[in-house]
Amino acid sequence: MSKFEIQNLGKASIKSPLQLSTVRGDNIFNFIKEDHKVVYNLSLEAYKSCLDKGQDPVCLEKAGPRQNVFFDSKTTKAAIVTCGGLCPGINNVIRGIVMALHYFYDVKRILGVPYGYEGLNPKMGYGFQELTPDKVKDIHQFGGTILGSSRGGQDVGVMVDTLVHQKIDILFAIGGDGTLKGADAIGEEIQKRGLDISVVGIPKTIDNDIDIIDKSFGFETSFDIASSILRDAHNEAAGAYNGISIIKLMGRDSGFIAACASLSMPVVNFVLVPEMNFKLYGDTGFLAMLKKRLEDKKHAVIVVAEGAGQHLFNKDKVRTDASGNIQHDDIGTFLKNEISAYFKDVMPTTIKYIDPSYIVRSAAANSGDSVFCSGLAYHAVHGAMSGKTRFVVGRVNNKYVYLPIKAVTSKRKKIDLESEFWFSVLQSTGQPLSM
Amino acid sequence: MSKFEIQNLGKASIKSPLQLSTVRGDNIFNFIKEDHKVVYNLSLEAYKSCLDKGQDPVCLEKAGPRQNVFFDSKTTKAAIVTCGGLCPGINNVIRGIVMALHYFYDVKRILGVPYGYEGLNPKMGYGFQELTPDKVKDIHQFGGTILGSSRGGQDVGVMVDTLVHQKIDILFAIGGDGTLKGADAIGEEIQKRGLDISVVGIPKTIDNDIDIIDKSFGFETSFDIASSILRDAHNEAAGAYNGISIIKLMGRDSGFIAACASLSMPVVNFVLVPEMNFKLYGDTGFLAMLKKRLEDKKHAVIVVAEGAGQHLFNKDKVRTDASGNIQHDDIGTFLKNEISAYFKDVMPTTIKYIDPSYIVRSAAANSGDSVFCSGLAYHAVHGAMSGKTRFVVGRVNNKYVYLPIKAVTSKRKKIDLESEFWFSVLQSTGQPLSM
Amino acid sequence: MSKFEIQNLGKASIKSPLQLSTVRGDNIFNFIKEDHKVVYNLSLEAYKSCLDKGQDPVCLEKAGPRQNVFFDSKTTKAAIVTCGGLCPGINNVIRGIVMALHYFYDVKRILGVPYGYEGLNPKMGYGFQELTPDKVKDIHQFGGTILGSSRGGQDVGVMVDTLVHQKIDILFAIGGDGTLKGADAIGEEIQKRGLDISVVGIPKTIDNDIDIIDKSFGFETSFDIASSILRDAHNEAAGAYNGISIIKLMGRDSGFIAACASLSMPVVNFVLVPEMNFKLYGDTGFLAMLKKRLEDKKHAVIVVAEGAGQHLFNKDKVRTDASGNIQHDDIGTFLKNEISAYFKDVMPTTIKYIDPSYIVRSAAANSGDSVFCSGLAYHAVHGAMSGKTRFVVGRVNNKYVYLPIKAVTSKRKKIDLESEFWFSVLQSTGQPLSM
Amino acid sequence: MSKFEIQNLGKASIKSPLQLSTVRGDNIFNFIKEDHKVVYNLSLEAYKSCLDKGQDPVCLEKAGPRQNVFFDSKTTKAAIVTCGGLCPGINNVIRGIVMALHYFYDVKRILGVPYGYEGLNPKMGYGFQELTPDKVKDIHQFGGTILGSSRGGQDVGVMVDTLVHQKIDILFAIGGDGTLKGADAIGEEIQKRGLDISVVGIPKTIDNDIDIIDKSFGFETSFDIASSILRDAHNEAAGAYNGISIIKLMGRDSGFIAACASLSMPVVNFVLVPEMNFKLYGDTGFLAMLKKRLEDKKHAVIVVAEGAGQHLFNKDKVRTDASGNIQHDDIGTFLKNEISAYFKDVMPTTIKYIDPSYIVRSAAANSGDSVFCSGLAYHAVHGAMSGKTRFVVGRVNNKYVYLPIKAVTSKRKKIDLESEFWFSVLQSTGQPLSM
Repeated sequence: MSKFEIQNLGKASIKSPLQLSTVRGDNIFNFIKEDHKVVYNLSLEAYKSCLDKGQDPVCLEKAGPRQNVFFDSKTTKAAIVTCGGLCPGINNVIRGIVMALHYFYDVKRILGVPYGYEGLNPKMGYGFQELTPDKVKDIHQFGGTILGSSRGGQDVGVMVDTLVHQKIDILFAIGGDGTLKGADAIGEEIQKRGLDISVVGIPKTIDNDIDIIDKSFGFETSFDIASSILRDAHNEAAGAYNGISIIKLMGRDSGFIAACASLSMPVVNFVLVPEMNFKLYGDTGFLAMLKKRLEDKKHAVIVVAEGAGQHLFNKDKVRTDASGNIQHDDIGTFLKNEISAYFKDVMPTTIKYIDPSYIVRSAAANSGDSVFCSGLAYHAVHGAMSGKTRFVVGRVNNKYVYLPIKAVTSKRKKIDLESEFWFSVLQSTGQPLSM
Repeated sequence: MSKFEIQNLGKASIKSPLQLSTVRGDNIFNFIKEDHKVVYNLSLEAYKSCLDKGQDPVCLEKAGPRQNVFFDSKTTKAAIVTCGGLCPGINNVIRGIVMALHYFYDVKRILGVPYGYEGLNPKMGYGFQELTPDKVKDIHQFGGTILGSSRGGQDVGVMVDTLVHQKIDILFAIGGDGTLKGADAIGEEIQKRGLDISVVGIPKTIDNDIDIIDKSFGFETSFDIASSILRDAHNEAAGAYNGISIIKLMGRDSGFIAACASLSMPVVNFVLVPEMNFKLYGDTGFLAMLKKRLEDKKHAVIVVAEGAGQHLFNKDKVRTDASGNIQHDDIGTFLKNEISAYFKDVMPTTIKYIDPSYIVRSAAANSGDSVFCSGLAYHAVHGAMSGKTRFVVGRVNNKYVYLPIKAVTSKRKKIDLESEFWFSVLQSTGQPLSM
Repeated sequence: MSKFEIQNLGKASIKSPLQLSTVRGDNIFNFIKEDHKVVYNLSLEAYKSCLDKGQDPVCLEKAGPRQNVFFDSKTTKAAIVTCGGLCPGINNVIRGIVMALHYFYDVKRILGVPYGYEGLNPKMGYGFQELTPDKVKDIHQFGGTILGSSRGGQDVGVMVDTLVHQKIDILFAIGGDGTLKGADAIGEEIQKRGLDISVVGIPKTIDNDIDIIDKSFGFETSFDIASSILRDAHNEAAGAYNGISIIKLMGRDSGFIAACASLSMPVVNFVLVPEMNFKLYGDTGFLAMLKKRLEDKKHAVIVVAEGAGQHLFNKDKVRTDASGNIQHDDIGTFLKNEISAYFKDVMPTTIKYIDPSYIVRSAAANSGDSVFCSGLAYHAVHGAMSGKTRFVVGRVNNKYVYLPIKAVTSKRKKIDLESEFWFSVLQSTGQPLSM
Repeated sequence: MSKFEIQNLGKASIKSPLQLSTVRGDNIFNFIKEDHKVVYNLSLEAYKSCLDKGQDPVCLEKAGPRQNVFFDSKTTKAAIVTCGGLCPGINNVIRGIVMALHYFYDVKRILGVPYGYEGLNPKMGYGFQELTPDKVKDIHQFGGTILGSSRGGQDVGVMVDTLVHQKIDILFAIGGDGTLKGADAIGEEIQKRGLDISVVGIPKTIDNDIDIIDKSFGFETSFDIASSILRDAHNEAAGAYNGISIIKLMGRDSGFIAACASLSMPVVNFVLVPEMNFKLYGDTGFLAMLKKRLEDKKHAVIVVAEGAGQHLFNKDKVRTDASGNIQHDDIGTFLKNEISAYFKDVMPTTIKYIDPSYIVRSAAANSGDSVFCSGLAYHAVHGAMSGKTRFVVGRVNNKYVYLPIKAVTSKRKKIDLESEFWFSVLQSTGQPLSM
């Protein structure tokens, strides 16, 4: 069994309520066939290598509505849970799931789980809220999550008990790495108990660090908002003699937001990301390069991802937050202090430190992300109704596909420092290839 | 020769001034090998069909910097021309080309051609402007084109004469279908004369109707801006009893902007695109559906692409504009009048007609498009410096590739009415599958 | 009785439920005394003139909460109606009224009248909606009016019958000149019948043409939005050789939006307003000035208020809309055609015509207007609760005051062509003092 | 001599180059007469009190162009300096001054002083930049200051030496309290030396804390931007169980931004400003009120001005920054820690701390502020050309006036806790009248 194969609860034997076609030429969208797969690795070299070995290329399952569904619309009950930090587009995904269940599949019973996985633990006493088209129709215009969120997991057995008790058939879990692993554990427990409950993940990570998929929702909005903050941070830097603006952006393990924001608003002179092992000191170190920049242009803009420069700290023990994410030392404050100390007797500088984290996270999705979120939501519903489980929906090579949760959580996506993308960031900032 | 093969001016035998690598593992981006190609059709079925026939799959040439270049940086002179209507991102592309030529390849002589192809006709007397990093560094923050633009072509021979006279080595042409065809004609004339001038197209079409490529630059910004206009148009509709807002959006032959804007701002009840042959009258016609909507909800929002409904007009002769685009009858005003007439004795309505065309076209690029534009610009420069000609740069399957101009101008990209995309638009608006 | 004296339904003899103070020094806001008035004309000259004549200066009644109220909170029932075209801030005013009635005065019964004065005519069959804090808490983030609106009046007797039948004590009417005159007529009929119903107007006019008051709500938002449209219209003009952008902005009788938008986005070369009698032809006419501008700079941006240039049309009869507003000939299209004809054989031009009317009207209020709207709403409630009637709330000399409806509807506010304001507009555009 | 009387360098005896009128009725703006004054206190009571005492009311000098000017346009040389922290609109004011000098008064020699008062100290070696219409025409679209800024003063004698050496006739100083006091000292030194140099202040304070004037430029933009940050901070608070968002906004001595932002985006539950002496502890203290809020609604949004709660710190000595402003202890972090400690064993909470300071300061001016800035700039130029000195331009009672620098720097404007304005803030947030 390929690592990209999706599990099914059982045979989907109920005719789909969707009025779609199975032939080309009638101007009606066709059901997706179960064996519709798309090639993962596009390079001709990879293709030929498969050919040589007589193997099929690695393929992903095409997302979309199937001719038969597993769940009977009339009796199906779904639940939606949102976990972890805010990210633009969560409400769009909730809205899309509710609309697709209600209008496409005629599923009318949809529960909102309050405050993340905590809401599946009856001890918290939060209750549930019923979700209807009327309740969600305007929520795409707001950031945040109408359901509330929390970090960290809950006892898997307790959560499955709640699903059973509430007679939930499908659980949609919107969250990041930890949330998805939690969803997979819930799915595993469900299987152990022999239950017919589908568990679907919609990957949410503002850091864009979910493996394999092209991008995560909310990511483009995030660097869109971060960009305008960089534009104005440049005003701060240029407004003072030897003015330095340091902007800390999100990116615990991966520097995509820092890199893309800098690329889209090319006023940035240095981007520091977790993937780099830059030196602070020495002739080719960051501080020397910064000095050169100031001598040359009298101001500098520095973007630093929150997880960058961790190699600069002495670490006795690793700390983690409630979601199990490693807690980093604060590189932003550290850099500010190091820069301040370095220039103290060298030249006068004015340092402005900007940490817009929550301002970015809590924004509403822009239009590109809105379209993307509705695509993810619709496909999540199609997959769940057809009885697939322990899967996520994502876009790979610009196509919507289904992937086993395990396939995307085994490691984080990081910036490839040898990639064309990182090269374009370096080109755009003018910073040295290595420091 | 495959229809996707790129022409070269000659052997690229000069060592690239870019300090890149040829091995993995050194944390430095690698030059792209000439034979690096990517598969076009991702479906496993297509793959197996090739296998059965013993053919290689259809492949596209990977974009990126080559180890050897054709042009000697020290003497190279480039020109940039922007043609056709405005589109968000033109200035970003100009900026990216200038920066890449200047800083990556050390090409210091770059001319801006004023007012489109007219600027290559000395009779117009426009002159040229020199482009430097200092002149272009802030232009990405503004919509429009700092070079000016014009519609329509000029005599190909005259334009080539100008290139020769100005000692231009590379011409970057930013424009739509007509512009690209013009660029290809220039390239053909150059070949006839045996000249070493590279001609590169960067496809610009706010309608997103260039064939084969994933999307054109400025498109996402366009529907982002259109979305907020739809949001407020909904206020107008809902603000009156039986209020109807009609918003005409761009889309001469393809309805992508109308469709994506409606998908991202789900307050729209009807989207009419050029690809549809909708009926106005009859029990299942558009007007009857609109009546039903008003009876139900007391207001309606209608988005119509400018090229929609042309089958509703009696046409004696086809009119074209200076660029050769077919001039459409005004569907917006037509619809407004038809709706007004239809409801005149049926029920009171209030109709608001909104035509935001120029407001959308003249906006600055959003961040997603900014990143995309710099990618296109950088790759256009890499391709040109390596001596390729008569090609465009684009993104296919989420990868940057080079394509022969002819490959993308032979037909327009249109919405596939049987696609998952159009299905999601119909799902989102709730309009009938056909009218 | 001064023309600025406010009528009262009777003696306010109930102690206000507001916990305010009557002394300075206790850090609690003081009730406004009934005789608290503010001087209208600030010039020292006017002051001395009063002194010479032994007269009091013209004064306005200070707005604010009174120590005694007329209506008993426990039994009071209020209604809100919104009339005429959309304007940013209507929802903010609705929200503010509901919140102030509910939380400050403990008035819990508040009806929303649907679709303007039509909603007070039972024949329309619209019904009413109850307004609560929960229903209005988020509406300030949206443009439009949640109540719906309509143009034109209804039979005054019928409307008063409805107020009586619904046991309404206070009617808040949000609307322009026609709406306010209608409210005054309702108030007059109420007086004739000897009823204790207060009628309060909150002046709404996107054109800012209500007499005496500093500015109307939504006006600043309007020219804020119009400004960014001008910025991009400039991109359109500059993007073509002899490019001309014509932007038609609101302003039926007064050109304030056109003037302020041009002042705030100084890319405009000509502003044409209803207050001017400009010539089209001749050596010093508009077209000759435009030609001069094009010869000089190769592009031009023209802003025209919708009511400008009506002297250029032959008018046999005056047409009016449902609200009694004079219907103007379309100066935008007229200008476009005149300019096109004038330059036809003179020089090539490219004309872009932009009419963003609804896009501006339907926007949400910006923050300055939001603060202003809550001030207007709170003061409207204070005045109404104290038993005042047939009055509007407004800001004069930067102070909130109450004014009799009649005082502000006797004539429209217009741009004084001899004012410092208009002079600054002329200075900013560089257009001749007269054409 | 009244405290509002403006000093003059001498008799203005040169005919103004402005083509204005002196009569009403010719549709041309009239010169402002020297004795044109406007009443300061509008209350009828104040008026009558003057009458009783036989005194003229306190009056302010009307701003505007005078028939005669002091400086000869052909030889006049002006300089502009910008000091202190960034504030939206500085570039608009620079632009307006340059445009008014160049186009209205034909003054062609205008120097930009780099980096605040430091730029007037030759020891810094910064040089000057020439300012022309071409250089400033687009700068209003950007935040920051193109001239750069610095904090703190320089030796007055040295600065006057520089003005003399550079043959400056007029110095425009854009800055806050300290800057204006510095400008007045420069003016005093100039007088001592018997020089004919005019010194003009344009009050810049993002805190809106300059005394007497209605508002300072950039203030409305600031709370506009802060408002949208509050909107999204509310998403953060509501997104967690017992979620608390603390947003620190500017306001060293005066809480206007915190108050107006909260009023315009009514999602705020507590506003803490420097003018209040709130208690933290006890049954009616802030923490108890916050607990009540959380129990009731499960989330809370707190806005705190940076200078609030200083009474809660033990202060041994007062610290000041380079501009002489008192350096406050960080109330934001303090509150965060206090809240965290208070709830530790009481209930689970999630606290998000947001400090958007630079993001607000460095933004571009919105349209209302743009119009205001051009008014201030134009009037500053009119006043300076007429030979007035040691004055600021401002708006009082909605009229542009000239005020002696001393009149506005003797004390800071603060929120009057007994005012209608503060009452409306309390009403809007629902927080107790005192804590």
